[in-house]
Amino acid sequence: MKKIINQVENIVDEMLKGIVKAHPDHLKRVEGFNVLVRKDAPVAGKVALISGGGSGHEPSHGGFVGRGMLDGAVAGEVFTSPTPDQVFEGIKVIDSGKGVLLIIKNYSGDVMNFEMAAEMAEMEGIKVDKVIVNDDVAVENSTYTTGRRGVAGTIFVHKIAGAAAEEGMELSEVKRVAEKVIANTRTMGMSLGPCIVPAAGKPSFELGEEEIEMGLGIHGEPGTHRESISSADEITTHMVEKILSDIPFDEGQEVAVLVNGLGATPLMELYIANRKVAELLEERKLKTVKTIVGNFMTSLEMPGFSVSIIKLDKELKELLEKTADTPAYK
Amino acid sequence: MKKIINQVENIVDEMLKGIVKAHPDHLKRVEGFNVLVRKDAPVAGKVALISGGGSGHEPSHGGFVGRGMLDGAVAGEVFTSPTPDQVFEGIKVIDSGKGVLLIIKNYSGDVMNFEMAAEMAEMEGIKVDKVIVNDDVAVENSTYTTGRRGVAGTIFVHKIAGAAAEEGMELSEVKRVAEKVIANTRTMGMSLGPCIVPAAGKPSFELGEEEIEMGLGIHGEPGTHRESISSADEITTHMVEKILSDIPFDEGQEVAVLVNGLGATPLMELYIANRKVAELLEERKLKTVKTIVGNFMTSLEMPGFSVSIIKLDKELKELLEKTADTPAYK
Repeated sequence: MKKIINQVENIVDEMLKGIVKAHPDHLKRVEGFNVLVRKDAPVAGKVALISGGGSGHEPSHGGFVGRGMLDGAVAGEVFTSPTPDQVFEGIKVIDSGKGVLLIIKNYSGDVMNFEMAAEMAEMEGIKVDKVIVNDDVAVENSTYTTGRRGVAGTIFVHKIAGAAAEEGMELSEVKRVAEKVIANTRTMGMSLGPCIVPAAGKPSFELGEEEIEMGLGIHGEPGTHRESISSADEITTHMVEKILSDIPFDEGQEVAVLVNGLGATPLMELYIANRKVAELLEERKLKTVKTIVGNFMTSLEMPGFSVSIIKLDKELKELLEKTADTPAYK
Repeated sequence: MKKIINQVENIVDEMLKGIVKAHPDHLKRVEGFNVLVRKDAPVAGKVALISGGGSGHEPSHGGFVGRGMLDGAVAGEVFTSPTPDQVFEGIKVIDSGKGVLLIIKNYSGDVMNFEMAAEMAEMEGIKVDKVIVNDDVAVENSTYTTGRRGVAGTIFVHKIAGAAAEEGMELSEVKRVAEKVIANTRTMGMSLGPCIVPAAGKPSFELGEEEIEMGLGIHGEPGTHRESISSADEITTHMVEKILSDIPFDEGQEVAVLVNGLGATPLMELYIANRKVAELLEERKLKTVKTIVGNFMTSLEMPGFSVSIIKLDKELKELLEKTADTPAYK
């Protein structure tokens, strides 16, 4: 295992220190916790948003802390849910009295621990609510979930619900917007190979020289099937069709697209894939109003990518287009 | 070779199409050429900046086309200089009459072809000038250069000279600023492994299971030496010391830092390295006023990273802090 790390047990702590050193204008760390919050938290008069999960998905979620997106992000160990006390601490620090929305990716551990933290917060009189993101169309249940997994489409929840909160909406309204994003977002991913969890020290699975896995999860959970590698266009077409067959679209529907790298895929390849995504959506007479290409929800150094598509109505489109100012999304 | 590509010969064309589809508000392609220019090019009354080089370094350079940075970027084949006619076409499209500055990374092929394009432009009465970036402290000469290589520090040239042009400076002044950036910028890189140039289909070199290469170039050119992998802190310390021993710094000097991923290094690891960079600079009583962490000058899917440090005076600091609006830097 070759990695730019020191002691395995210090990875998350040292990473958080490095983020704070890089982005002191955007965020600060809650002392003694693996929690990053907006530098100006709590923001008076604003509903606060918190997300998080296992580390190894950077820039998710700390990179999205800032004006117009998250107020807090909780970092667990690599591919491991943060504990309830960490999440609870984050909730306490960011709550301005207007309440806190928890944005949880659908993984059993995350759901359990965030819900436990929500209960702890309610017991202290903090108003909390939650949404569970389940955008992955690949599989119905998975190694770590009941129901669909929450993957890269979560970025749209952070962005759009974050804008709703910034606009001054109440907690119930911010939740309504977040639920609408979730209902209209679908993601499909694929991988060319595994990644290595530092504490394990070896790849989580093996793929043959010419083999790829379709529908893989962001922790290396199995997807729908393995196949021989084909062209970028064939792979991308399969992914987009899987998404479009899952949610009915009308001609002229406005959408936004996220072509997300899993960590080791060159931007060159993501753009080649994006070219095909754009072409396929044009053929279906969908109107792409925003496209995001890059590494947003990674899986350590996994090679591969995902495509997320969100159907936009007027409200979602306007909120998506609001400015945000975070380390990883502006 | 597993890559998200179609025909090898179409990679650059398809990548450029994918970039334009993703960023139609920032840039457009010069029809029939592998040249991206600002959507509003030529920008009246403004000195224009053009850069470029082989493809495979994305987001360099097309990702930096936009307000406050580049007016044009020319994309050669992977790791291959763009031809003079391509560069010439870019110069013609972006020139508003105020002249064009060519920002060339020091590689023999780039220097030759950009200079030839400059001559062609001059023959057509276009005012042009050039700067050559040579920030890499690793080696004095290299496989593809006489003198030091131009690598990730080029981003500081794009940003700061771009701001100078946006402020309305004349060509000679923009060049003076760019030269000052180059004189004050140093970069040192390292790699954990090779990348695969698509047309070659196999890795450009081999490293042992536990071996790393210090000072490697962005095309896989040899560095200073190979050694066994050590901790992130040891590697980072070596890199920062190599830089600081190359350029005299006084206590209290203001600097900016770029921790740049080469393509396949997780952001987690870049932040761990950044934590150590920040610590080392604090020990030397240098004052870091800006830190940039991410993939800016990549080498396809090479694992590894570089550290760039620039000494800032009042002028450079103010220009660095101006806003820019490009796909990869805001």
